[in-house]
Amino acid sequence: MAKPVQVDDLARFCREVLTAIGADPETARDCTGSMLHGSVHGVDSHGVRLLGHYTRALQGGRLNKSPKLLFTRTRAGSGMLDGDNAQGARATYAATDHACDLASEAGIGAVGITRSSHFGPAGAYALRAAERGMLALVTCNSDSFVRLHDGAERFHGTNPLSIACPAPGNPWLLDMATSAVPFNRVELYRSTGTDLPEGVASDSAGADTQDPHLAEMLAPLGGMFGFKGAGLGGVAEVLSAVLTGMKLSPDIAPMGGDDFSTPRGLGAFVIALDPRAFAGAEIVEAGVKRYLELLRASPARPGRKVMAPGDREWATALERRKNGIILDPVTAAGFSELSRTLGIEPVR
Amino acid sequence: MAKPVQVDDLARFCREVLTAIGADPETARDCTGSMLHGSVHGVDSHGVRLLGHYTRALQGGRLNKSPKLLFTRTRAGSGMLDGDNAQGARATYAATDHACDLASEAGIGAVGITRSSHFGPAGAYALRAAERGMLALVTCNSDSFVRLHDGAERFHGTNPLSIACPAPGNPWLLDMATSAVPFNRVELYRSTGTDLPEGVASDSAGADTQDPHLAEMLAPLGGMFGFKGAGLGGVAEVLSAVLTGMKLSPDIAPMGGDDFSTPRGLGAFVIALDPRAFAGAEIVEAGVKRYLELLRASPARPGRKVMAPGDREWATALERRKNGIILDPVTAAGFSELSRTLGIEPVR
Repeated sequence: MAKPVQVDDLARFCREVLTAIGADPETARDCTGSMLHGSVHGVDSHGVRLLGHYTRALQGGRLNKSPKLLFTRTRAGSGMLDGDNAQGARATYAATDHACDLASEAGIGAVGITRSSHFGPAGAYALRAAERGMLALVTCNSDSFVRLHDGAERFHGTNPLSIACPAPGNPWLLDMATSAVPFNRVELYRSTGTDLPEGVASDSAGADTQDPHLAEMLAPLGGMFGFKGAGLGGVAEVLSAVLTGMKLSPDIAPMGGDDFSTPRGLGAFVIALDPRAFAGAEIVEAGVKRYLELLRASPARPGRKVMAPGDREWATALERRKNGIILDPVTAAGFSELSRTLGIEPVR
Repeated sequence: MAKPVQVDDLARFCREVLTAIGADPETARDCTGSMLHGSVHGVDSHGVRLLGHYTRALQGGRLNKSPKLLFTRTRAGSGMLDGDNAQGARATYAATDHACDLASEAGIGAVGITRSSHFGPAGAYALRAAERGMLALVTCNSDSFVRLHDGAERFHGTNPLSIACPAPGNPWLLDMATSAVPFNRVELYRSTGTDLPEGVASDSAGADTQDPHLAEMLAPLGGMFGFKGAGLGGVAEVLSAVLTGMKLSPDIAPMGGDDFSTPRGLGAFVIALDPRAFAGAEIVEAGVKRYLELLRASPARPGRKVMAPGDREWATALERRKNGIILDPVTAAGFSELSRTLGIEPVR
C-alpha cells in the first residue's frame, strides 16, 4: 500500500514542476490550485493526475507558459477574457475574479473566455466566487465523448456545469458533468473488469452496452430522459462556445491526442451574482441556511443519507487534509519520473 | 372524438373568461399567452387546462386581478420585481422584459421576482427573451413533489429550468423539469392503468415504485445519478427562493390545496444575456447555426431521430396551428361550465 502524501507537499511538488519547466508564477499557482481542488475534494479525475498532462502541453507549446491575459469590459456587467492559450485554470480563475468584480458593481457579471484550454474541475472556480460572497455558474465545453439523446456518435463533451451559492460554513456547491458518468469511470471499470451500470455508455453503433471494453461513447444524463442531459450539455455549448465564438465540441481536437503543440481554442463561461443586489445579503444568508437545514434533515431511504451538493466533498477534504492523499500507481510513477528528470524533491 | 379547437379561438375564449371575472387586460393577455404557449407547443400540462385553476385563484383572492407590479433596478444589471400577487405569467413576462432591457444596457441582466405565483411553462418566458434576441435562463421553484437523492419525502418542487438561445429560424429552447417526469404523468398512468417507467416515482417510504397508484413522490432526474437532478432542483431553489427571499419549496402551500384566498408567496428568477456584449451578434448567430446543423446531422440510433431542444415543440406548434387542438374531456367540460356561468361564447 502506497504511503499517503500530505496536501501541502503535493502542492509544493506541482508548483515546483510547473516552475521548473518555465511556467510563469501565476500559471504555476492556478494550475496547482485547480488540481489540488480536485485531489483534496475527491474529484480525482481532475486532480494531480493531470500534472503530467499539463506539463507536456506546456512543454509542447499547446499551452502558453507566460500568457498575457487580456480582459475587455464590454458593458457594465459583461466582458471577454482572451486567454492567450493559457492553461485553463489560469484563464478561468482570472475570468472568475473579473466576473465577481463586475457583479460587485452591476449586480451580475458575465465573462466569456476565449483561447483557453482544459480547465479541470469547474467547481474550483465556482468555489472561488462563493468565497468572495458571490453566487456563480461556471461551465465549459470539451472534446466529444457523449452521444446525443437517440444519437449514435460522440457529439458533446462531458460539458460540466458548476453552480455555487455562498452559505454559512461551506457553500452549496454543485459540480456535475452533463453525461451520466465521466469517461474515466469507463476506464476504471475496464481495469477492474466490472460491468458498467445500465444506460451510461454505448458501443460504436450507439447501442447501450454494459461492457466497458465495448464502450465507445457516453450517454447523456437522464437515461430514457436523456434529452434533458443532452440539453444541459447544450447549455454548456451555447455559453462556452457559441457566445464566445470558440470551438464547438465536435470541432475540438482531443485532449489526449498526439499533437501537443497546437492550441485547442477552447471557450468557457462564468456568471457571478451579488446577493446584495437581490434580496440582500442577510436575507439570502438566512434563506440558504434554512434551505440547507431543511435539506439535511429531510428523511432518507433506509440505510442512506441525504446530502447537499458539496457535502461529500467537504467531508473528503477534511479527511484528506488530515491523513494525506494516496496517489494512484500511474500518477505516482509519473511523479517519480518528473522528480528525476527535473531534479525536484519527490513528494514525501 | 372531440372536435379540434382553433388556436385563435382558444386564445379568445381564455381572454374573455379572464376578463369576465375581472382580471385586468395585462393579466388576461399574459395568462392567456403562457397557457397558449403550453397548448400550442404540446406542453399540455401547462396549457389551457389551467384556465379553470387560474380563474378560481383570481376569484378567490389568491391572485390579484389588478396587480401593481413594482420594478426596482438595484444596480446596472440587476433588479427586483414585486409581483403584488399577480398571476405568475403576468409577473414573469414583465420580469423577462426588464431583464432584457437590463441586458441591452449592461450586457447581462437578472431580475428576481417576489410575491408571484404559478407561472406555467418556463419556456414561454425564455422564448420571449429569445424573440428579443437575448439568451435567457428562467426558473422557479414550486410546492414539494420531488424527493431528494436518497431521500424519502417530497422536498423540491418539479423546479423547472428553461434556457433559450436565439437562432436563425426557431431558437434553441430547453424547458425541463428537474424531476424525471412531471406529476401529471403519474396521474395519466393512473387513469390508463399502466406501469410507470422504472425509477421515476417512489412510494410513501421513498422506495421506487412502478405502480402509479402507490406513487407518492417523484424521483429527481438522473436515476442512480439523481444527485445531479436534485442539485439542479437546488439551482432553481437557490435562484428563485433564496436570492429573492421567497418561500422554499417545502414551505409553499400546495397549488391544488383548498385555500384559494391566500397568496402563495412564490419567487422566480430571470437572467438575460445580450450576444452583442460577448462575441458579437454575427459570430454568435453563425455559431448557433453551425451548432444546430451539426446536431441535427448527427447520426441517430436505428429507428430514432436526433432533435435539438425545441424541435419537437416547433413541429407540434406547426401541426396544431394548422389543425387545431383537441381538448381533454375534463378541460372541455370545464370550458362548457365557464361558458355557461360567465355567458361567454363557447370554443368552436
